[in-house]
Amino acid sequence: MKIYVLRLGHRPARDKRITTHVALTARAFGASGFVLASVNDEVVVKSIKKVCDVWGGSSFEVLTGVDPVRYINEWRRSGGAVIHLTMYGIHIDEVINTLRTLGKDLLVVVGAEKVPKVIFELADYNVAIGHQPHSEVAALAVFLDRLFNGKELHLIYPDAKLCIVPSGRGKKVVRCE
Amino acid sequence: MKIYVLRLGHRPARDKRITTHVALTARAFGASGFVLASVNDEVVVKSIKKVCDVWGGSSFEVLTGVDPVRYINEWRRSGGAVIHLTMYGIHIDEVINTLRTLGKDLLVVVGAEKVPKVIFELADYNVAIGHQPHSEVAALAVFLDRLFNGKELHLIYPDAKLCIVPSGRGKKVVRCE
Repeated sequence: MKIYVLRLGHRPARDKRITTHVALTARAFGASGFVLASVNDEVVVKSIKKVCDVWGGSSFEVLTGVDPVRYINEWRRSGGAVIHLTMYGIHIDEVINTLRTLGKDLLVVVGAEKVPKVIFELADYNVAIGHQPHSEVAALAVFLDRLFNGKELHLIYPDAKLCIVPSGRGKKVVRCE
Repeated sequence: MKIYVLRLGHRPARDKRITTHVALTARAFGASGFVLASVNDEVVVKSIKKVCDVWGGSSFEVLTGVDPVRYINEWRRSGGAVIHLTMYGIHIDEVINTLRTLGKDLLVVVGAEKVPKVIFELADYNVAIGHQPHSEVAALAVFLDRLFNGKELHLIYPDAKLCIVPSGRGKKVVRCE
């Protein structure tokens, strides 16, 4: 099962950091790629690449300036399913088992404030990480954590240069073996 | 068990949106309060209040301009425990059961890029939501989701004006009864 994350509605002046957090969460929580819709933003791409250089993930694909409707349609045509995270959707508790056993590649779509109606219509599943307003970063993290049953939080990329030695106090970082 | 979230290292020019997402995640995932260390940022406070006006949570406390070291010390003096979320800490899987049954009020501390050493030392638990760099918003969301066993995603505030009717397609919002 391949997971990609598609980020909609990025406004470079305003969303640089949120979008970077979405991308880093995608990478850290076991997605295989991050797709930024409509715009190119070199600052975001550089931040992700910098993390991949040190902590691994050269296989993590980053695409920008992608037409979201075309991308979603192509994803579905090649047999994948599209999940749009929105507070208006079906509660995650109702659908997570179905999604886990679907046996399809999943495109997880997260928006900024206003998501066009067409996305709600094109998605195979509109899924709510609770019905309160919060954050696309939080929504993505909880979705992937539930999808992978928490296994993703033990992820270490094989090409990582640095590794953390877990510590109750302070920071212990070593060169990976 | 009362949960508060303390946000460190907020730089108003850069972190407005991330800090707002941290606060909204705290509110949506069942924390009782949000504390912004060191600075006052009216933009952040207004964003939270606006959400509380519509979706409820007048009981959700928001404090700004608080000295973090003093706040942490006072929290511990009054019998609470302090948990600092950091990729360098002990893996959440190792400590979540302990924290759930601690029977203490919990202060969850999240930082920006550089967290001073003193925070690692003052915290009762330095906890890693995985050992990859990602996002304080993601870390907080997963921490609270695990702590509350997912029950927080069914939260509706009693003073909410609007409520969502979960929908597979589109948005259905009604006045709460």
